[in-house]
Amino acid sequence: MVKIGIVGGTGYTGAELLRLLAGHPNAKVTVITSRTEAGIPVSNLYPSLRGVVDLCFSEPDVDSLASCDLVFFATPHGVAQNTVPAILATGTKVIDLSADFRIRDIPLWEQWYGQPHGAAELVPQAVYGLPEYNRSAIQSADLVACPGCYPTSVQLGLMPLLQAGCVDISDLIANAASGVSGAGRQASVANLHPEVSDSFKAYAASGHRHLPEIEQGLADMAGSEVGLTFVPHLLPINRGIHTTLYANLTATEVDVQALFEQCYANEPFVDVLPAGSHPETRSVRGSNFCRISVHRPGNGKKVVVLVVEDNLTKGASGQAVQCMNIMFALPETAGLSMAGMVP
Amino acid sequence: MVKIGIVGGTGYTGAELLRLLAGHPNAKVTVITSRTEAGIPVSNLYPSLRGVVDLCFSEPDVDSLASCDLVFFATPHGVAQNTVPAILATGTKVIDLSADFRIRDIPLWEQWYGQPHGAAELVPQAVYGLPEYNRSAIQSADLVACPGCYPTSVQLGLMPLLQAGCVDISDLIANAASGVSGAGRQASVANLHPEVSDSFKAYAASGHRHLPEIEQGLADMAGSEVGLTFVPHLLPINRGIHTTLYANLTATEVDVQALFEQCYANEPFVDVLPAGSHPETRSVRGSNFCRISVHRPGNGKKVVVLVVEDNLTKGASGQAVQCMNIMFALPETAGLSMAGMVP
Amino acid sequence: MVKIGIVGGTGYTGAELLRLLAGHPNAKVTVITSRTEAGIPVSNLYPSLRGVVDLCFSEPDVDSLASCDLVFFATPHGVAQNTVPAILATGTKVIDLSADFRIRDIPLWEQWYGQPHGAAELVPQAVYGLPEYNRSAIQSADLVACPGCYPTSVQLGLMPLLQAGCVDISDLIANAASGVSGAGRQASVANLHPEVSDSFKAYAASGHRHLPEIEQGLADMAGSEVGLTFVPHLLPINRGIHTTLYANLTATEVDVQALFEQCYANEPFVDVLPAGSHPETRSVRGSNFCRISVHRPGNGKKVVVLVVEDNLTKGASGQAVQCMNIMFALPETAGLSMAGMVP
Amino acid sequence: MVKIGIVGGTGYTGAELLRLLAGHPNAKVTVITSRTEAGIPVSNLYPSLRGVVDLCFSEPDVDSLASCDLVFFATPHGVAQNTVPAILATGTKVIDLSADFRIRDIPLWEQWYGQPHGAAELVPQAVYGLPEYNRSAIQSADLVACPGCYPTSVQLGLMPLLQAGCVDISDLIANAASGVSGAGRQASVANLHPEVSDSFKAYAASGHRHLPEIEQGLADMAGSEVGLTFVPHLLPINRGIHTTLYANLTATEVDVQALFEQCYANEPFVDVLPAGSHPETRSVRGSNFCRISVHRPGNGKKVVVLVVEDNLTKGASGQAVQCMNIMFALPETAGLSMAGMVP
Repeated sequence: MVKIGIVGGTGYTGAELLRLLAGHPNAKVTVITSRTEAGIPVSNLYPSLRGVVDLCFSEPDVDSLASCDLVFFATPHGVAQNTVPAILATGTKVIDLSADFRIRDIPLWEQWYGQPHGAAELVPQAVYGLPEYNRSAIQSADLVACPGCYPTSVQLGLMPLLQAGCVDISDLIANAASGVSGAGRQASVANLHPEVSDSFKAYAASGHRHLPEIEQGLADMAGSEVGLTFVPHLLPINRGIHTTLYANLTATEVDVQALFEQCYANEPFVDVLPAGSHPETRSVRGSNFCRISVHRPGNGKKVVVLVVEDNLTKGASGQAVQCMNIMFALPETAGLSMAGMVP
Repeated sequence: MVKIGIVGGTGYTGAELLRLLAGHPNAKVTVITSRTEAGIPVSNLYPSLRGVVDLCFSEPDVDSLASCDLVFFATPHGVAQNTVPAILATGTKVIDLSADFRIRDIPLWEQWYGQPHGAAELVPQAVYGLPEYNRSAIQSADLVACPGCYPTSVQLGLMPLLQAGCVDISDLIANAASGVSGAGRQASVANLHPEVSDSFKAYAASGHRHLPEIEQGLADMAGSEVGLTFVPHLLPINRGIHTTLYANLTATEVDVQALFEQCYANEPFVDVLPAGSHPETRSVRGSNFCRISVHRPGNGKKVVVLVVEDNLTKGASGQAVQCMNIMFALPETAGLSMAGMVP
Repeated sequence: MVKIGIVGGTGYTGAELLRLLAGHPNAKVTVITSRTEAGIPVSNLYPSLRGVVDLCFSEPDVDSLASCDLVFFATPHGVAQNTVPAILATGTKVIDLSADFRIRDIPLWEQWYGQPHGAAELVPQAVYGLPEYNRSAIQSADLVACPGCYPTSVQLGLMPLLQAGCVDISDLIANAASGVSGAGRQASVANLHPEVSDSFKAYAASGHRHLPEIEQGLADMAGSEVGLTFVPHLLPINRGIHTTLYANLTATEVDVQALFEQCYANEPFVDVLPAGSHPETRSVRGSNFCRISVHRPGNGKKVVVLVVEDNLTKGASGQAVQCMNIMFALPETAGLSMAGMVP
Repeated sequence: MVKIGIVGGTGYTGAELLRLLAGHPNAKVTVITSRTEAGIPVSNLYPSLRGVVDLCFSEPDVDSLASCDLVFFATPHGVAQNTVPAILATGTKVIDLSADFRIRDIPLWEQWYGQPHGAAELVPQAVYGLPEYNRSAIQSADLVACPGCYPTSVQLGLMPLLQAGCVDISDLIANAASGVSGAGRQASVANLHPEVSDSFKAYAASGHRHLPEIEQGLADMAGSEVGLTFVPHLLPINRGIHTTLYANLTATEVDVQALFEQCYANEPFVDVLPAGSHPETRSVRGSNFCRISVHRPGNGKKVVVLVVEDNLTKGASGQAVQCMNIMFALPETAGLSMAGMVP
């Protein structure tokens, strides 16, 4: 039984970790911290966990966290970097769901996140937690930087094309849309129900924090810098990311359907749909699947890839559990085999 | 391993059975029938089950169903009664999720459902599948009539008061609201997204099909006829029932909070919230819990009970699996321990 | 042309006043104040008003407000009472959309709103702005206290029964549900989209601020104290209130349909639906109509009244404009004749 | 007063015409036809129109329609072409909201709509009703083919760039998303609330009926054929289209913000937002505005245009009324000056 600690359990990714780990056969959450809620039962904050999770929040404390085999950080960006070094030093492994250890270029990180990095020396040893790209490195990692929700969908949708070298990498487009839980659980006017419901908009069209992470990942896959236009949108749904990707094929005789099917043939959580399909976000609601379909309108040079995932599951906490399974040599699907909830 | 057949797997309760049973450690679906979809993989109709359920729909056929230990009927009202006798005759047990075997008064059933009953002789042996009221009878049943979604919430919300005999049973009010999945998966204008979304209404205020079932159940609990006003409403949500119950206490010194806590102290799926709470439907989304809180505004004679359940889970397929667990002497929570999905 | 000032234009009722008055043939908003947004065009905050409203927010200032014929207060409870006396003193009329002048019993107001009342001496001259009950008093009022959203629906739904004296006034029940805009436009976790969407709950079941206002209004109509149980619920919709009212008839031979039709025969904004109908909140979305239907399930002694209104229109700003029309001897429907927006 | 007939008033565009024309100072609907609802008051089908529209549906009949000055066809594709010739012959003008007269290439129309065209001889005289592109032709038209909802947003978003000749027209991308009302008011499983709500998907990624109309319009604006990739998506909202357009600038020194502002400086219904803005669909809910913002991420060669409109208003019935105003020399904004409904 892997003993688990969670730092920052009051947000949506923390709650999703609790939901997933409650059903995991080989892991048990023993510590969950929150500065503001210390002493309070987790199920007071999330009544959905009554009868399922029987823990109280505690003050963040390195000693109690070090008693765990693994600590998940589900904290806002900029927080994990202050505590992770001390925890790693005790031999406890860490999976960070925030952006703190994702970007190798420290000045670039500091520019987008607006603060000096507090643990830059750890960034080189952090392993980017995208199992479909990085599985073997994750197996032996002590510190995993779990990918962002948008980056996961964009990278999984483009990886087969980039690795096959069959698209113009100077002109990639990612038109993405996320459910509101992606914005977190902080009080705000912008994300009030009456502000978001029955509406739709793009945001950060001129530049979003996830852009450098995506560009880094795509460049790794392509073997050189890519040109990417990334436009995120806000969907009036709770969970789910849908990404529509556009690229120009450089070799038009390529069978893109076969390319995707081969690339993901052995992946337990990437599902390539039959030709002509259109994935729906609800088909992965609450599940760790990423479903992909690929189109070539008019059989021309433009390839359109459609990707869906649950931003809280495969886009965050589910992927983190998948990484945990890999790090601890558990079956990769342990605790993650549930179907999407429809309707 | 209990071998399971499902008749009528194309509707929402059928899909929910598949979702729940896919995660059940002691049961396996081996047959699922649909006249219209025979030969088609289940996951074509429900892509959310891709990678989780690997079955095709088959033609309804008594022989193949008789090879199962248990058959669930997730068919529209009036269908199960035609096939259930033949299946029971082979020794296979049956749980019917429709209304066919719920009402003991056959003419009353025929009046509300507008057709002659095709298997009236089986009705006396059918056991009403509300575990919290009827557990021991379910243990030895061959034919279980699973309660309706509204009736489950109303009966669980009033049972402690009726069994304690502390309310005026001639004037009970159930103001209930259901998500749209309760209306099933048939093409209709009335349930189109633009007709239902961002709106709310009552319906059938002068009389609803679930009324006689509720009245029968409440009378059993109270030991005599009750007077009930039942007004259902349509919520613009996918899943969930919220029922607000009103009754007049006949003895004002009663501690209603203690009454509810004692009544449900040993129930794995009925959660009495702390005094002053208000349950949310999302706290039971996709889970088998029923959460209840009880109020006495101004500490007067009026008692207000708030009940939530997921209409597809505790209100239908989850309750059916709970009954199966009881019938086959499995742990009652087997396959049903997942938390509600929030957000 | 009536010159209009609006104090507190950044909230939803302020925005709704602007939307309605932009289309009013006999009124023009000349001043709109906001301490936090002074100097900013209104349409920066509400891009929906671009091309329609060409005003900037200004600092609250008695002199500029006194240059108007009428000032609407769309401020949080407790604010208007500080400024209204000075404005009334200049001869400018006031319609207050908050609760400040609704309750005649000052200690009761102070108990529910948790602060001393700052202008108790004005309360006796404030006219309660429910035109269907109070039209002639509104005609000559200088200060109108516009009813709350819940109170409007409950009072309009019960008025015919109370005035006819045909129900037991000691046991009235109002089961009401409101869209989220009723909670205002303040940053909060509780009203974030992911907290509210696809869910439903009751709140304040043991006592809500609107209760004393409703009880006062019903007592006026009935001629003596009433016993009311009021349970509000939160709907995952933007706008709309649906109230389901329950009462026991004391005279069973009464024709309730005729009673309602007669009571509201000459009312431009109260629409009694044909017998057997169920009003939907969307049928009044953005309009000033209140639609009502009345049922007697099983033709018994219980009467069930269904009422819908838009909480921001007939439940707040539309009703305020209706009062304005009455106060300034304009056609009562001026600026308010738009249909509900469906879908 | 322009006398108006509406053919096909039971769908969403018909209802929207009724809503808009009820508030029009210079037009009056005198005939509304529906084969299935003849004799029934319009407000029975749409209770939102009770107290606002006092008409009954009548059987479709050329004589009564010919008594009107103008007839709107709000019928499914393929219907108007059967009756329009007879109506035009009487001197009555026609605005068709369907696709029947939009495509000049008859075989292309027949290929996408799967039926022979019944009035091909009228197509050359039909004027495409996009006022911002075609105003003077509309002034003198007898037959206007009102643009589709997607085509309006794509064409208005690209027109400034195409007319300026500053983008590569061989590689245009329109990533569009529509509310569910765009799918009409026919019974279907696919558009049931539980199928659509809390979800998002692309559809027709390999080719959509609106593609040839858009390509024709863009080619007219550009002066030669264009290469367009068009991917529509289904939004879980009632009304609204959001289109995200991508193009490569051929001249990077162009000031795209100024280009858009100049192009639409005199347009009453096209609102170019300040640089850096992101339009929301709710800002045009129920209004005839189209709001546009334009971005150049990283100040590179990619231009991203964001366009919102209400698919039932500027995308259908509002645009039809705007065309009517132009045809009858009324103020172009008559009956169309309402603000978007927020929230």
